[in-house]
Amino acid sequence: MTDCIINGHLVATEEATISIQDRGFRYGDGVFETIAVQSGVPYHFDWHLSRLERGLHAIKIAFDTSILKEHCRQLLHQNKVGNGLLRIQVTRGIGSRGYLPDPAHPHAGPSFVIETNPVPIMPDKAVTLWHSSYCKIAENALPVQYKLCQGLNSTLARIEAQEQHCFDALLLNHKEQLCETSSGNLFWLKDGTLHTPSLACGALEGIARRAVIQLSPYPVVETVAGIEALKGADAVFITNIVWKALAVEGLQPHKMRWQSDETARNIRQLLTDERESYCKQQGPEW
Amino acid sequence: MTDCIINGHLVATEEATISIQDRGFRYGDGVFETIAVQSGVPYHFDWHLSRLERGLHAIKIAFDTSILKEHCRQLLHQNKVGNGLLRIQVTRGIGSRGYLPDPAHPHAGPSFVIETNPVPIMPDKAVTLWHSSYCKIAENALPVQYKLCQGLNSTLARIEAQEQHCFDALLLNHKEQLCETSSGNLFWLKDGTLHTPSLACGALEGIARRAVIQLSPYPVVETVAGIEALKGADAVFITNIVWKALAVEGLQPHKMRWQSDETARNIRQLLTDERESYCKQQGPEW
Repeated sequence: MTDCIINGHLVATEEATISIQDRGFRYGDGVFETIAVQSGVPYHFDWHLSRLERGLHAIKIAFDTSILKEHCRQLLHQNKVGNGLLRIQVTRGIGSRGYLPDPAHPHAGPSFVIETNPVPIMPDKAVTLWHSSYCKIAENALPVQYKLCQGLNSTLARIEAQEQHCFDALLLNHKEQLCETSSGNLFWLKDGTLHTPSLACGALEGIARRAVIQLSPYPVVETVAGIEALKGADAVFITNIVWKALAVEGLQPHKMRWQSDETARNIRQLLTDERESYCKQQGPEW
Repeated sequence: MTDCIINGHLVATEEATISIQDRGFRYGDGVFETIAVQSGVPYHFDWHLSRLERGLHAIKIAFDTSILKEHCRQLLHQNKVGNGLLRIQVTRGIGSRGYLPDPAHPHAGPSFVIETNPVPIMPDKAVTLWHSSYCKIAENALPVQYKLCQGLNSTLARIEAQEQHCFDALLLNHKEQLCETSSGNLFWLKDGTLHTPSLACGALEGIARRAVIQLSPYPVVETVAGIEALKGADAVFITNIVWKALAVEGLQPHKMRWQSDETARNIRQLLTDERESYCKQQGPEW
């Protein structure tokens, strides 16, 4: 049994609820972050907090994020989390049935929920991606560079990939440029240079993506490219804070194939070492 | 005090809650319908139910909608609704923290919530629209022809319009074609023909839109056109089940202006008469 925190209050997760009038439930009207925790320390909490703040600003939710750190500390302690995930979600809260928020609603004001979760089981070998029939939502429709609670595009792409017996979906943007997978960022190694789709292509600025760019033993280029750029790559891998770096061995239905294991393993090890070092250095007082 | 129905159970709306693990709250992972109720009878319940079913199918939620009608009847009776709104929301329910749903989760399975709401106050004169800086989400990113619980695009557009002292936002699609407003469908009268953006432009197939097409005294054309098509229109109005037809007198920042009152009033009267007649004919047993 674990607890979570709802609007500052500790609640048993199994009994934790939110009003059906919350705009998070009505419209996915909010943002979230999922943070890796190691030895009880959140990895780059400040990076996540900064993205959360920028996302809140982009969707015009006024919320004082400075209260979150102490609540996160309390919950990690309460749930005795060593290695795990910390999830923070902030929504616009209660206020109007329609799209236009009503700040005059008697219960108006943002809601926040903090949870801890176990680290999911990782694939133990290289995975195959499915070139999604869904296109990534364009940046002029939504500020997709933040983790919005608008998860249906990613959900549908991931379900489709699973139906095609693939691990994850590769999404292009509306200009048919490489963007990201449903749940992670994309990297490919070609001629000694590591490439990843530019943020200008609508990719999320992932925390693991940022770490790879900083730690890579190869020069890194943020690239604008179509799917053909993956042909002839020496290795392909995908990143997020859970997978770190996960080797990709193929892309369907294009029958592209790569020998990605060694490259992904090396990058993964760099990320693992850096995370350990970071969390150790921060210590229990992070 | 009103009640609502959550997964078949009557609950006081003020106390009505849903698990924070519900994917509706995490990701807006669901669909909804808002239905006009007159003299206790939902207007074209079957049209709404059909759209809800098609939306559920499009986002791959398996849910038996046949149970909804009886629950709606019960709730309208319980809340003694004469004229009002009936809102049905179905989400994917509990099941996994990440995007990929987990049907093996012990609490997996869709959730549904039915609420009643009062009819909102309508503007009593013609309104001005704001040409939104947000583009409508493309149909190859999400099945936007259904009422998805992905309301952030509409919410941001509507907030922006309000900031610009306009009533609603006019959104174009990614091809710069006229699409719809944040909360309704668009019509314009030109040279004796009534135009509305084609569903191929990503417009929602609104219930009021459908009624206008059926009842219009003018020939109706579903049109693919840019914003310049509105120049020189004889009247412009927007429709949804609350507004019926609402006159538009201007579009900012383009300084376009129209004399829309009489046309909108006529269409509105036709919709009002037809709704009254429909609900009377259905009777309390609808």
